[in-house]
Amino acid sequence: MNDVYVIGVGMTAFGKHPDRTAADLAAEAILGALDDAGIKTADIEAAWVGHVYQGMAMGQRGLGAAGMSGLPITNVENACSSGSTAIFHAATALKAGIYDVVLACGVELLSTRFRGALAPDESDIEAQIGLTMPAVYAMRARRHMEQYGTTPRMLAAIASKNKFNASLNPLAQFKKPVSVDEVLAGRMIADPLHLHECAPVSDGAAAVVLISARKLHQLDSSRAVRLAASELRSGKLEVGLPDMTIEDLTWRTAEAAYQQAGLGPEDVDMAEVHDCFSIAEATRVEGLKLYPRGEYPARVARGEANIDGRLPVNMSGGLLGKGHPLGATGVAQVIEIVKQLRHEANDRQVEGAKVGLAHCRGGKARGVEGTACTVNILTL
Amino acid sequence: MNDVYVIGVGMTAFGKHPDRTAADLAAEAILGALDDAGIKTADIEAAWVGHVYQGMAMGQRGLGAAGMSGLPITNVENACSSGSTAIFHAATALKAGIYDVVLACGVELLSTRFRGALAPDESDIEAQIGLTMPAVYAMRARRHMEQYGTTPRMLAAIASKNKFNASLNPLAQFKKPVSVDEVLAGRMIADPLHLHECAPVSDGAAAVVLISARKLHQLDSSRAVRLAASELRSGKLEVGLPDMTIEDLTWRTAEAAYQQAGLGPEDVDMAEVHDCFSIAEATRVEGLKLYPRGEYPARVARGEANIDGRLPVNMSGGLLGKGHPLGATGVAQVIEIVKQLRHEANDRQVEGAKVGLAHCRGGKARGVEGTACTVNILTL
Repeated sequence: MNDVYVIGVGMTAFGKHPDRTAADLAAEAILGALDDAGIKTADIEAAWVGHVYQGMAMGQRGLGAAGMSGLPITNVENACSSGSTAIFHAATALKAGIYDVVLACGVELLSTRFRGALAPDESDIEAQIGLTMPAVYAMRARRHMEQYGTTPRMLAAIASKNKFNASLNPLAQFKKPVSVDEVLAGRMIADPLHLHECAPVSDGAAAVVLISARKLHQLDSSRAVRLAASELRSGKLEVGLPDMTIEDLTWRTAEAAYQQAGLGPEDVDMAEVHDCFSIAEATRVEGLKLYPRGEYPARVARGEANIDGRLPVNMSGGLLGKGHPLGATGVAQVIEIVKQLRHEANDRQVEGAKVGLAHCRGGKARGVEGTACTVNILTL
Repeated sequence: MNDVYVIGVGMTAFGKHPDRTAADLAAEAILGALDDAGIKTADIEAAWVGHVYQGMAMGQRGLGAAGMSGLPITNVENACSSGSTAIFHAATALKAGIYDVVLACGVELLSTRFRGALAPDESDIEAQIGLTMPAVYAMRARRHMEQYGTTPRMLAAIASKNKFNASLNPLAQFKKPVSVDEVLAGRMIADPLHLHECAPVSDGAAAVVLISARKLHQLDSSRAVRLAASELRSGKLEVGLPDMTIEDLTWRTAEAAYQQAGLGPEDVDMAEVHDCFSIAEATRVEGLKLYPRGEYPARVARGEANIDGRLPVNMSGGLLGKGHPLGATGVAQVIEIVKQLRHEANDRQVEGAKVGLAHCRGGKARGVEGTACTVNILTL
């Protein structure tokens, strides 16, 4: 099977862009990625575009706005893992030897579609009885507190870390550090989760250019980063009352990715994980086996996951700080790892890192633990 | 690269199913395909689900309803080519050697979503000035009439042929043959296209199980049909005033598929093509180079495309007769070819056919000739 490399990355600023179209945002990210890769639009042989709410033919509209047409384009949707699902399929096609240069893009324009929180689907019985996303994660937080002695202050430390990291990221939605006390003083959304512990409504786009090893040899490869593993899994039907602090889906996906990369959790130097809520970062990092089960919030409070800590998490600011334009999120996570491994992360630079992991998951179907989860592992 | 085979097919009756859910329809098709393949749910390693209007995590809901979870599932959208795009990706993953047994499904439940015709998107400027789909195809029909001497009666013969074929298909939406005179006596939708010349609003699902050559050797392979080519392309930006009777997108996709299969138009014995309107069957069949440009409607009127004709087209009844549940359409086309090549098409059986082609295309982005086109070629 052919090896896969990232040779170009591009993204818009994440935030509120009510005056722009999703196609326009996608085009900015795509052209940025091509420019970064030093290739032309005509070099791209196929494209995958992940989004959730942008309607029919989003990819064709986005690539069209970038002056690209005629190639095979596929729109993919896997809830909050849509963008990373696009990467998974772009990588698969390169591994198959079908193409040599492909594009994966994620895009979402939410601010003109939702006022406040995302509205649950009208057929969603869980949401109808109050089990909206914040409620579900609040229950997970309560359970983590009960089982492991986690405190609201420790959870707030996760949000504070990510808001601080975001303040170092010029493309992040939030520019201002928020202290632990400020997180705890914020409006309560679903006890024990305060406002700053919940991902915002965001607009944005992100794109990466992937290339096969055989093609890379023909180019300047000094800034290429290897995509050592890309895996996708979906949730299993839940039976009985599962332990809500355990991320079986995250672990199954990670296990497959570690195996594909020939690496283990102990080899990972840094990670971008799906922190849609403060507690989510904890259960995911623990599910990835990057930190011992039940200990992550306490260790964050001690600084271990800071950019200069033992194993930095969400250097970009994560969903809580950088923002969460659903389809774009999974691609932007990979972009942060690429920038780190290229030593182009400026104020957010993690020193000496050789292996980075990007984890994304999303959705919740009735009686199923999750819609989809992706794990991408990148190496120098 | 690994060869790919279809070993199981399943579909619901197409028609109006307002009392059912899309997940329920998908599950029926999926379980039918597994049963036909003689394999169990646990044998499926990955799945792709194509749909347009069914919302977040359709695939996960559909597979969940079939008792399947935990595997990699990807929802894909490419307008009316969504289902065949699912097949394209399932085949690609097998070629890559990543999996050996995968599922491609298409599903759509439209009857409870749209009253009458599909509503254009509110941002669709073309539709706002009256260029809805029937209007666009009516212009194409007028142009075909002007250039080639095609008559309304010849176009009506296409619809009449497909309605007759549908009357032989127990899973078709329309059960009653419609004569050419009856087509011409029907309500005018967009001159020269009458009611029976326009695809209906439909519900339904279809699924196929694909298998790698290496795995097929371990099973009873007597009913397997080879997927000799699967290609996907998107439309090009249109410049100037293109000839609306020429399907450049269809030809570009077909050319790639013919090349992949090592075959040419002259080798094709039968075809299922995207007849969303009577004129569409003509421009597509001509774009595929199965019939000489400008001559198809006249030849249909002479019976050449009948099931017992020189080169049968839309033996299943096509979109006009079998129905058009958007996401399911591309998969159902492939199912018809598989049934024909297995000699399981009963009253619709084409005798002696060895090569069948399924063509699907859909969508229309601003200034672009089409969202996506797929061509699948199957051989004995």
